[in-house]
Amino acid sequence: MVILVGAGPGDPELLTIGALKAINAAEVIVYDALVSQEIVELIPEHTEKILAGKRGGGHSTKQEDISNLLVKFGKENRRVVRLKGGDPFVFGRGGEEACCLANENIPFRIIPGLTSGIAGPAYAGIPVTHRAVNANFAFITGHESPDNTQDHNSEDVHPSRIDWEGVARTFPVIVLYMAMRNVESVRKRMVAAGRSPDTPVALIRWATTPRQQTMVTTLGRVTKDIKAVGMKPPAIMIIGKVVDYRNILQWFQDETLVPPES
Amino acid sequence: MVILVGAGPGDPELLTIGALKAINAAEVIVYDALVSQEIVELIPEHTEKILAGKRGGGHSTKQEDISNLLVKFGKENRRVVRLKGGDPFVFGRGGEEACCLANENIPFRIIPGLTSGIAGPAYAGIPVTHRAVNANFAFITGHESPDNTQDHNSEDVHPSRIDWEGVARTFPVIVLYMAMRNVESVRKRMVAAGRSPDTPVALIRWATTPRQQTMVTTLGRVTKDIKAVGMKPPAIMIIGKVVDYRNILQWFQDETLVPPES
Repeated sequence: MVILVGAGPGDPELLTIGALKAINAAEVIVYDALVSQEIVELIPEHTEKILAGKRGGGHSTKQEDISNLLVKFGKENRRVVRLKGGDPFVFGRGGEEACCLANENIPFRIIPGLTSGIAGPAYAGIPVTHRAVNANFAFITGHESPDNTQDHNSEDVHPSRIDWEGVARTFPVIVLYMAMRNVESVRKRMVAAGRSPDTPVALIRWATTPRQQTMVTTLGRVTKDIKAVGMKPPAIMIIGKVVDYRNILQWFQDETLVPPES
Repeated sequence: MVILVGAGPGDPELLTIGALKAINAAEVIVYDALVSQEIVELIPEHTEKILAGKRGGGHSTKQEDISNLLVKFGKENRRVVRLKGGDPFVFGRGGEEACCLANENIPFRIIPGLTSGIAGPAYAGIPVTHRAVNANFAFITGHESPDNTQDHNSEDVHPSRIDWEGVARTFPVIVLYMAMRNVESVRKRMVAAGRSPDTPVALIRWATTPRQQTMVTTLGRVTKDIKAVGMKPPAIMIIGKVVDYRNILQWFQDETLVPPES
């Protein structure tokens, strides 16, 4: 049995009960670079741990190798947990891994996890929906460059299939995962499609952990401000007026990165 | 202290560790009609329980009354949990409740919960993202009628602010919450905007509980098929080719509602 488990965004308190049980019962855990250190430390000493990371830019195990490893362990009838940051099915490639297992007739289960695109903003005091602002919101992976460029150094980037102008016009609130790589081109396309440069934007790094950093800026200034404060990937970006609620709703002691006045 | 807690979609195993701790430590719990019976049963005997339900159609407590109750308990320095189905900030009006608390200087925290729009499909064997299908997805509340009609019997419905045609054209995968009320008008608008009537659609009721029901149909047939199988609200609707993965990835023993052949 292979269990695909969402570890959530970082805070161990945001692990589900099912996830914790699966971690404690596993013989081998294959985990992501996006699983927080706090959660990796919960893995029992005697459990075999394999880091099969995938992180933007750095050295990482190929997706095919990870799937093959899960199939191998599954065939050996080991109790396998595939532990993934966030939710396995939200830009997590859990679907591909599950398909590989299904194709080999290896029993599997899914334990969904909290996704950083909702929980990160919540910890920053930003509701992804607010009645006065929006009745819909969009999730987009920032790995798809709006500029349609193919990055041959990474298997994760391929020509964008996203109608960025359509998104900009249709959705008051947009959450971008892995936003840092393409922030400038996203910004340009959004403004070109008519979104005001004054649209509030928040960037959130190390969401829900004691190291959480949040920067509030605007669509017009976001690229400049990222440079000014030296914010690093990976980060979640949330675009829309819901960001303003942080002024009222900030409850978690994150580090606020304050960009200089222009 | 008032803690706004997401109870998740239904399965108690999908409660977070933080949520369970908060439930066990609470003096009074104000909970929704959307919190599953299994989770309500976890509330300790000695804890005061108040059902402040809001459910499509039925009798329910007004939002203002709920917020006032939380403020009252907060001022009494009680350990209050506001337990909401899914996530407090995903169409859950948690932002409004938190704003009321903040305005009265009552300390509050947020414990995000799994949202049924991701976890429900996962239990049905449907990934909300799959590399071969989509790099983005949209969440929409079905409480906003595409026909712009105001339902004076409910405070939940008001004229739609959603550009349904834009959504239909821009997002390969769309998840509708509380989808049943407006399914026919959503269907019409999607098809009018160019989505094929053959687009796969799944409806999921009682997501992640032993009573979960899933029906797979198409955009063209969805209204007819809902009637044919007698599916009832509330339900999540997921539109897009990711629905096809249920054929490969179904792992949870839900009840499959099979519409008759046309």
